[in-house]
Amino acid sequence: MSILVVGSVAFDTLETPSGKRGRVLGGAATHFALAASFFTDVRVVGVVGDDFLPEHEAVLTSKGVDTAGIERAEGKSFHWTGSYVKDLNSAETLATDLNVFAAFEPKIPSSYLDSEFLFLANIDPVLQSRVRAQMPHVKMVAGDTMNYWIGAHRDDLLKVLRELDILLINDAEVRMLSGEPNGLRGAESVMAMGPKTLVVKHGEYGSTAYFSSRSFNESATRKPFRTPTMPLGEVVDPTGAGDSFAGGFYGYIASQPTVTPDVFRKAMFYGSVMGSFAVEAFGTERLQRTTRSEIDERFEHLKEISHL
Amino acid sequence: MSILVVGSVAFDTLETPSGKRGRVLGGAATHFALAASFFTDVRVVGVVGDDFLPEHEAVLTSKGVDTAGIERAEGKSFHWTGSYVKDLNSAETLATDLNVFAAFEPKIPSSYLDSEFLFLANIDPVLQSRVRAQMPHVKMVAGDTMNYWIGAHRDDLLKVLRELDILLINDAEVRMLSGEPNGLRGAESVMAMGPKTLVVKHGEYGSTAYFSSRSFNESATRKPFRTPTMPLGEVVDPTGAGDSFAGGFYGYIASQPTVTPDVFRKAMFYGSVMGSFAVEAFGTERLQRTTRSEIDERFEHLKEISHL
Repeated sequence: MSILVVGSVAFDTLETPSGKRGRVLGGAATHFALAASFFTDVRVVGVVGDDFLPEHEAVLTSKGVDTAGIERAEGKSFHWTGSYVKDLNSAETLATDLNVFAAFEPKIPSSYLDSEFLFLANIDPVLQSRVRAQMPHVKMVAGDTMNYWIGAHRDDLLKVLRELDILLINDAEVRMLSGEPNGLRGAESVMAMGPKTLVVKHGEYGSTAYFSSRSFNESATRKPFRTPTMPLGEVVDPTGAGDSFAGGFYGYIASQPTVTPDVFRKAMFYGSVMGSFAVEAFGTERLQRTTRSEIDERFEHLKEISHL
Repeated sequence: MSILVVGSVAFDTLETPSGKRGRVLGGAATHFALAASFFTDVRVVGVVGDDFLPEHEAVLTSKGVDTAGIERAEGKSFHWTGSYVKDLNSAETLATDLNVFAAFEPKIPSSYLDSEFLFLANIDPVLQSRVRAQMPHVKMVAGDTMNYWIGAHRDDLLKVLRELDILLINDAEVRMLSGEPNGLRGAESVMAMGPKTLVVKHGEYGSTAYFSSRSFNESATRKPFRTPTMPLGEVVDPTGAGDSFAGGFYGYIASQPTVTPDVFRKAMFYGSVMGSFAVEAFGTERLQRTTRSEIDERFEHLKEISHL
């Protein structure tokens, strides 16, 4: 089944302990779409400027990603400059040039309206709500957000949260949103705001899914589920790791006939696998050359390193 | 089979978000011994002062722990005062009164000399080496250390590391010891210093075992192994979590006829289980009232929340 993802398609200028790269293709929707493309059809809604060339579009279309919803606006694409030199686990933003993204007004092509799955990547919650309202018949809605929206646009964000089946955020965002230092209580507090299920990303330490009574139709377990990460000898560029996790996770979910607890757990593993590829090279380089057999191999590897 | 543990038996004065406690029984050897006592015979070598009363000794002896090696010295027992009010994941030391521990010279009772397993808890590496030298015939030696010894007594510590089958330390200690920010490369660097196997504790996020070609006799997998933690609604007091992990881990290992990769993985799970109990109440309160059926239950719980 098809996933519609709305979010940023951008250029990133990056500095990490492994080196520097100028203006590589990035953005949450890009990483998400590439990761999800290994599992299901993906359609992107976003906006780019005249610096978005055919070669950039080909990165997506060569993986079968539908780019009909990427609007071309006059000006330059969103450009983020960040550094991980001090700490690989935490990006230092050096510059955020919103450019054409500042006036982004998502437009959904009619060919996208039959998408069964919707992913609201990290953008203004007002826009997330608008997109969600235009897709009333989707089977499932998942989304992401960040500290900026939690802090300065909390009311708008709370409206989006009520619409979500699954929210994917990190530990710090759970603490900020819930005001609760304890992870389990924080998760319960966030699910009480709306999301039926919460996936919390712990960076290099993996992720945990928390379930509510609304997570599954059946009388399924409500125990959390924890997923490890691949031990990697070199993390080249962490940018897009969370979006790639979300893409692998949601892509697998969308590829399955029903979302059972078993499917959900496997989706968490596929998320972790796609995140592990994303960080092994700058930008989308590693995701571009990933093969399905590599994905299956890492899935088995993750099982081996975590199962008795 | 029997474990001999050498380390601190102490009193802790603690402040955490859950409250305060004055002079509760603590110390690395105490937490380790209690946790390990559920799996095998444990013998303690340590030193206490005249404030160590029969009621304190009974905490250990009531679990079958052999306290013949706990020396009584004139003066007061080691007393640590710490706070977790600012951050549950990191202890702030308010006072360290070594008292009788300052002149600790481990003496091994002859009745302990047939112990098959040795655990060198976090004490001066010079003393760790001396104890190890007095126990030449043990089947296995495991140990712990901390940032202080890594920084100020590195050469002494490096001598101990060469004697270890298993080293159990945390992420920050791996980075400090190896000078390597990457976890996998740091682990390889630490194992090159001596320990055949390295268990790295990630606090609330679980732990990872790294293996070398010397970890097992057989041609076993050398893939790392990752263990989750129990999601807990309240962490009352993290003191002794790492020692309790080590006790559960090593206690299970010592209870098995041979140390296979399968035994090692289960031992990691039992370590995580014992750590989860330790933090649920102040000092040793929760470990004291833990039952074997609770341990089995949490072991199954950990499997459920991490296995596909």
